[in-house]
Amino acid sequence: MQICYTLYIMTDINKESVALHKKHRGKFEIKSLMPVSNNEELALAYTPGVGAVCSAIESGEVKAKEVVTSKNSVAIITDGSAVLGLGNIGAEAGLPVMEGKAVILKEFAGINAYPIALATQDTEEIIKTIKNIAPTFGAINLEDISAPRCFEIEQRLSEELDMPVFHDDQHGTAIVVLAGLINALKIVGKDKESVKIVINGAGAAGHAITELLNAYGFKVLTVLDSKGVLNESKVCGTGNKEHFCEVIKSTCANGDTGRCDISTLEEAIKSADIFIGVSAPNILTKEMVQSMSDEPVIFALANPNPEILPSLAHEGGATIVATGRSDFANQINNALVFPGLFKGLLESGKSKVTMQMKLSVAEAIASLVQSPTPEKIIPSMFDDGIVDAVARAVKS
Amino acid sequence: MQICYTLYIMTDINKESVALHKKHRGKFEIKSLMPVSNNEELALAYTPGVGAVCSAIESGEVKAKEVVTSKNSVAIITDGSAVLGLGNIGAEAGLPVMEGKAVILKEFAGINAYPIALATQDTEEIIKTIKNIAPTFGAINLEDISAPRCFEIEQRLSEELDMPVFHDDQHGTAIVVLAGLINALKIVGKDKESVKIVINGAGAAGHAITELLNAYGFKVLTVLDSKGVLNESKVCGTGNKEHFCEVIKSTCANGDTGRCDISTLEEAIKSADIFIGVSAPNILTKEMVQSMSDEPVIFALANPNPEILPSLAHEGGATIVATGRSDFANQINNALVFPGLFKGLLESGKSKVTMQMKLSVAEAIASLVQSPTPEKIIPSMFDDGIVDAVARAVKS
Repeated sequence: MQICYTLYIMTDINKESVALHKKHRGKFEIKSLMPVSNNEELALAYTPGVGAVCSAIESGEVKAKEVVTSKNSVAIITDGSAVLGLGNIGAEAGLPVMEGKAVILKEFAGINAYPIALATQDTEEIIKTIKNIAPTFGAINLEDISAPRCFEIEQRLSEELDMPVFHDDQHGTAIVVLAGLINALKIVGKDKESVKIVINGAGAAGHAITELLNAYGFKVLTVLDSKGVLNESKVCGTGNKEHFCEVIKSTCANGDTGRCDISTLEEAIKSADIFIGVSAPNILTKEMVQSMSDEPVIFALANPNPEILPSLAHEGGATIVATGRSDFANQINNALVFPGLFKGLLESGKSKVTMQMKLSVAEAIASLVQSPTPEKIIPSMFDDGIVDAVARAVKS
Repeated sequence: MQICYTLYIMTDINKESVALHKKHRGKFEIKSLMPVSNNEELALAYTPGVGAVCSAIESGEVKAKEVVTSKNSVAIITDGSAVLGLGNIGAEAGLPVMEGKAVILKEFAGINAYPIALATQDTEEIIKTIKNIAPTFGAINLEDISAPRCFEIEQRLSEELDMPVFHDDQHGTAIVVLAGLINALKIVGKDKESVKIVINGAGAAGHAITELLNAYGFKVLTVLDSKGVLNESKVCGTGNKEHFCEVIKSTCANGDTGRCDISTLEEAIKSADIFIGVSAPNILTKEMVQSMSDEPVIFALANPNPEILPSLAHEGGATIVATGRSDFANQINNALVFPGLFKGLLESGKSKVTMQMKLSVAEAIASLVQSPTPEKIIPSMFDDGIVDAVARAVKS
C-alpha cells in the first residue's frame, strides 16, 4: 500500500510538473534592471553610454563584476551524461534540471545563474569549451557529468581557470553527508576515529564522500562498487577507478585494515557503525542492518528509491535513517549547500573551492541543528539562516 | 560650439551610464517563474517532478522549447574583437554591449537573451565552441566580431547548426540601410536600377550592405575600402577581401561598368546619387557632396562621428541625410531589426536567416513610414508596430 500510494503521488507530481513547465515555457525569464523606453534611457543602457562602461572595464577603472550581471552569475553546465537517476539522456533533455538549480540559486540566495547544455561528452572538448566561455561568468557549477570524466574535468578547470569550479553531484552531496554524520555521532555517542563506515557506491558522490570523510578524520572507511570492496590492488593502476587510488591507500591503511581484504557488502556491513549508500534501490536488507554494530546509522541516498526504506531499516534496529527524499525525515539535500556556497564565493571573490572550505561548510550546516534528534540530524533548506551560514563559512 | 556642446553631453551620458551600471551591478537579472517556497513547490520545479520533464524531452513527448526557457532564448556571442567603435577590447570588456542587447530584446520583443563572452579569437575555436553550447539556445546572435573572420564564422555556423545564426553588425545594418533607401528613392523619384551608389567601407557592414542592395536589384554599386575602389582584380584570389569576389563580380558587371575602373572616393562620388558610409569620421567633404548628381542621398553611418555632419551635407546640397545617431533625423538603427527578427525566428521555428527574409524585413520596415519625408525615411524604434511587422515579415 505504501508503495502504491507513493507511485500514485509521483505520477501526480510528474504530470503537474510537466504541465507547469509547459505553461511557463520554462522556469525563468530575463528581467531588465534598466529601462529603455525612450532615447535618453537607451543612451544610458546601450549606445552611446555603454561604450564608456566597456572602456572603463578595458582600462581597469572598474572590474567587470561591478557593472555586468553575467560576471556575478553562475554557469550551470552539463553534458547530460548522468542526469538525476535517468542516466545519459543528453544535455538538451537535462536542461530542466539546470534551470531548476538556477531558480533555486535565485530564490534562496539571490544569485543569478544560467544553464549551459553541451553538445559534446568528450573530456578535452568539454574542458576547452568551458574555458572558452568562462569570461562570461563568475563561477562554474558542473552538473550531472558522469564519472570518471567528471573528476578530470573538475580538476583541470580548477587548475586552469581563475574562478571557482564546483561539481555539485560530488561535493554538494559529500558536504551534506558529513554535516549529517557530525550530528548523528552526537546522538549515538560515537567517535569519528573509531566508527566503522561502509560507503556503498563508487561513482562521483561516493568518491567525494570518501575523500571528505577521510579529510575530516574518519579513519575506518570501506568503499564498495558494484563488484565489491575497493582496495589498493583493485584501484591503483587500473584506469577506471584510478582516482580512488590515493584515498583508498589512506583509508585502507587506517585502523582496522582487515576491512579492505574482505569482498562483499554482506561481509563489510557486519559490525559496521554507519552505512552510506549512493548506489541503487533495495540493496540493503533488514538482515544486514541487524548484523551492524549497536545503534546503526543508515544514509540510504539512492533517489527516488533508497537502498532500504526507512521503515525497514528501523525494523532492523537502525537508530538514525537519512535519505535523499523530502517525504522522509533527514533529507540529505545538495540544495542545503550550493546556494550559500556560490553566494559566499561570488561575494568574497575567492577563486578556488578548497577542502578546508568544504569542511567548514559541513560544520556550519551541522551546527544549525542545535539539539540533534534521530529525526532531525540535518536542517531543512527552508530553515532560516542556512544560506547565510554557508556563505559565512565559505568566506571564513 | 556644436561640437563642444556634444562633447559635454557625451561626458555626461558616459558618467551617468557607468554610475547606473555600477548601481545595478549589470543590467538584468534572472527572475523565477515558478515558486520554490516549500517542499511541494520544490517537487514540481525541481526533483522529483523535473525528472518527468527531462524524460518527456528525451522521449520526444515534448520539445525542449515547450518547457525550457533557454531553448526559446538568444545567445548574444562576442569575441570582443570589434566592439562598437572601440576596436579589439576583448570579450569581457564587450559584455556591457551584449547585456544591452539582451535588455533591448526583452523590453521590445519579450525575448530572453543571454550574453556569452569568448576567451578565443580563433575562427575554428569560435565555431567549435559555439557548436558545443548550441543545444542551450534557440538562436545565435553573433556580435562585434571583426571582419573577415565574421564571414566564415557566420557562414559555417549557419550551415552546420540547425538553428538561426545572425551577425547583427552585418545584416542588421544592411536591412535598415535598405529600408531607408527604399523610402529615400520615393522622395527623390529615382529608380533602383539606374541610381549610382557609392559604398565607402568594406568591413562587415559594407559587405552585407553590398550583397543585400545587389539582391534587392540596385545595379550600379561602387565599393571602396581605405585603399580605394574594389574591383575583381583587387578582391578575387587575394585572401583578405576574397569574400567580396562574388558580389563585386556581379555589381561591377552591372550598368555603368567604368565605375569599377576608377580609384578614389573623389572620383567615385562624382555624379553618384547615393553615398553610404560605414567607414570613418569626416571622410566626406561638402565639395564631394556638391559633385554628386541632383538630390543627393547621404547615409553617413560612422558612429558616433559620421563621415559628414548632416548640417554640412545639407550645405553641400544633400536632399536626405541619415546617420547612426539618435540626436539627428533618420537614425539607421539595428535595433529596428533584431528584436522583431528573433521574435519571428523563435516563434516560427525557422532555422535559417535567408536573403529573401532580409529583403522582406527591409520592405516591412520601409512600409511603416506611410508618407516618407526627407526628415523621416525610417521609423523610430519607439514607433508602434515595428517589432510585430518585422516578426511577421520573418514568418511570411
